[in-house]
Amino acid sequence: MYPYSKLQDFCSAVFQSIGCSEEDAKLAAEVLVEADLRGVDSHGVARLSGYVRLWENGRINPTPNIKVVHETPSTVVIDGDAGLGLVIGPKVMDILQEKAEAVGTAWASVKNSNHFGIAGYHAMRVLPQDMIGIAMTNASPLVAPTHSKERMLGTNPIAMAIPAGKQPAFVADFATTAVANGKIEILKRQKQQAPDGWIQDADGNIAHEPDTLKQGGALLPLGSAPHQGSHKGYCLGAMVDILSGVLSGANFGPWVPPFVSFLPVSDHPVGEGLGHFFGAMRIDAFRSKEAFKQDMDIWIERFRKATPVDEAQSILIPGDLERVTTKERKTNGIPLLNAVEKDLKKIADKFKLTF
Amino acid sequence: MYPYSKLQDFCSAVFQSIGCSEEDAKLAAEVLVEADLRGVDSHGVARLSGYVRLWENGRINPTPNIKVVHETPSTVVIDGDAGLGLVIGPKVMDILQEKAEAVGTAWASVKNSNHFGIAGYHAMRVLPQDMIGIAMTNASPLVAPTHSKERMLGTNPIAMAIPAGKQPAFVADFATTAVANGKIEILKRQKQQAPDGWIQDADGNIAHEPDTLKQGGALLPLGSAPHQGSHKGYCLGAMVDILSGVLSGANFGPWVPPFVSFLPVSDHPVGEGLGHFFGAMRIDAFRSKEAFKQDMDIWIERFRKATPVDEAQSILIPGDLERVTTKERKTNGIPLLNAVEKDLKKIADKFKLTF
Repeated sequence: MYPYSKLQDFCSAVFQSIGCSEEDAKLAAEVLVEADLRGVDSHGVARLSGYVRLWENGRINPTPNIKVVHETPSTVVIDGDAGLGLVIGPKVMDILQEKAEAVGTAWASVKNSNHFGIAGYHAMRVLPQDMIGIAMTNASPLVAPTHSKERMLGTNPIAMAIPAGKQPAFVADFATTAVANGKIEILKRQKQQAPDGWIQDADGNIAHEPDTLKQGGALLPLGSAPHQGSHKGYCLGAMVDILSGVLSGANFGPWVPPFVSFLPVSDHPVGEGLGHFFGAMRIDAFRSKEAFKQDMDIWIERFRKATPVDEAQSILIPGDLERVTTKERKTNGIPLLNAVEKDLKKIADKFKLTF
Repeated sequence: MYPYSKLQDFCSAVFQSIGCSEEDAKLAAEVLVEADLRGVDSHGVARLSGYVRLWENGRINPTPNIKVVHETPSTVVIDGDAGLGLVIGPKVMDILQEKAEAVGTAWASVKNSNHFGIAGYHAMRVLPQDMIGIAMTNASPLVAPTHSKERMLGTNPIAMAIPAGKQPAFVADFATTAVANGKIEILKRQKQQAPDGWIQDADGNIAHEPDTLKQGGALLPLGSAPHQGSHKGYCLGAMVDILSGVLSGANFGPWVPPFVSFLPVSDHPVGEGLGHFFGAMRIDAFRSKEAFKQDMDIWIERFRKATPVDEAQSILIPGDLERVTTKERKTNGIPLLNAVEKDLKKIADKFKLTF
């Protein structure tokens, strides 16, 4: 078990070692470790070596000039200058917060960025200001649209954080696929098979072997099968891709640069880097905060009391599980797999740090 | 086969018979028949008698005073005054268009409304102005959240319309459930069973009999089963419910008034009527229209060419099927089921119209 602050300090030191400013490094470390705190282990410190490899391949600019390239009172387009998405995301949310204070809501499409960690972090960033936060991103092509055997979309997550009153905030954060790619990696480590509806092989047949993805297979959109509405998952992934990629001038669809540095970046990109889309909506641009929060409490309390199928499994509010995990891990520390520990020790050696 | 203009004229005459102005009646008829043109038969003229029954029950105000109750430069909250959602929707989209012209984007949460027809109509309304249109609505509780056997949410659809250049617009419009309720009704008429993943019975077991819904069963969220991500469909339905209901001051969750007039409205409503959420984003608030449209064409052309699993079934772009159906039905007319024809004749008799 590792205290989360120790992991944050280590990540911050690594980000400084690749050339980030102390401020940026701390921010990136906070976003990364937030994933571990929330139990999204696939997006936390386990990814640190991936970011380092991208930097080694010249694909991460540690001192980006993050700049506004176009704006109106409620919109902004940002060029991330190939910086860490972990740094670009929170900085954009802070810009949106200011703009939403002025005109009620604000929306950003971002190009020339990299992987931004968990979408939920960015959406939650405006909760203290009593705003609804929204974050989405396109990602490495791993997902086949309905009726296709070709990987055309990323897992393209959507996050929305909505403040409540006495109740904790509603925080939805989910890939627009049946499962996140991280779950396939977990199956692989545990030498288990995937259930129906997660992956297909290179010919488009239902597959169960986690290695199928490395052999040209694909993840399936949310809905899994055409008769269960997989075209709706495809629509959602496509909407995220267009808002993040096409609206900003980033790459989109199969052109999105892969996170893993051993896969080649397209020779003929259609845009710059990968793209994100963010939003911030002031609650009191719609209704009094008090009335809204009171109704959110009623919403949450009523849904929590919805009759369960099995008494042992009560109905969850989006964000419940992650909040429990955060509390537990802030107290007891964050567990790391041996493979991740070894990975972090290698990075420590590389940069003459201690882990 | 009925010419669509004949159906529009008839619906318009019926809406005028219940007291709508000629202008409102024409608009409502246009929205309703657009569903039939697009092949969404469950939301078209087949629903006309439902609206009439709601009016007979005093739940539709044919001469509403649709008013702005709160606004900022990029937001507006609308009180629909118990009018037809079919009229409120387009009027709100027109308000958003003006506001988005001024500040880049505009967003509306609407209370005290009724069923608004197909979400896609409203989203598409700002396409000619080179805007991305967004529409969603809460609806009669028919859907059980993951792990629950209680109906807590409606089919809560999401629509997004995105302009392109030479290619037709991208138009996604889908219920956040595995299937729309209309498909269950079709199964019933055809005396067929539902496949796995559409419905559960009153105890939360997978069910196949379409009548299960009338016996206390529920529709399943997109994803169908917990291991295939049904909690993500539940999240989506919940997000739509909160943006439409809680943010406006409409009813939400299990309190949303049912469309069918034979089901009672809650004695203890938590808000007014049902709620919608709309958005309009000017393309050139982000990027030059020309550059965006050129990239949308690349997006659409590339996805259309994604390798198919089966050569006979090519990859569809959201909106493709509906566009083909519209063209065909504008030429050849709209087919109506006998039951719907009889229904429309009854309405004609009631109001001394001819059909």
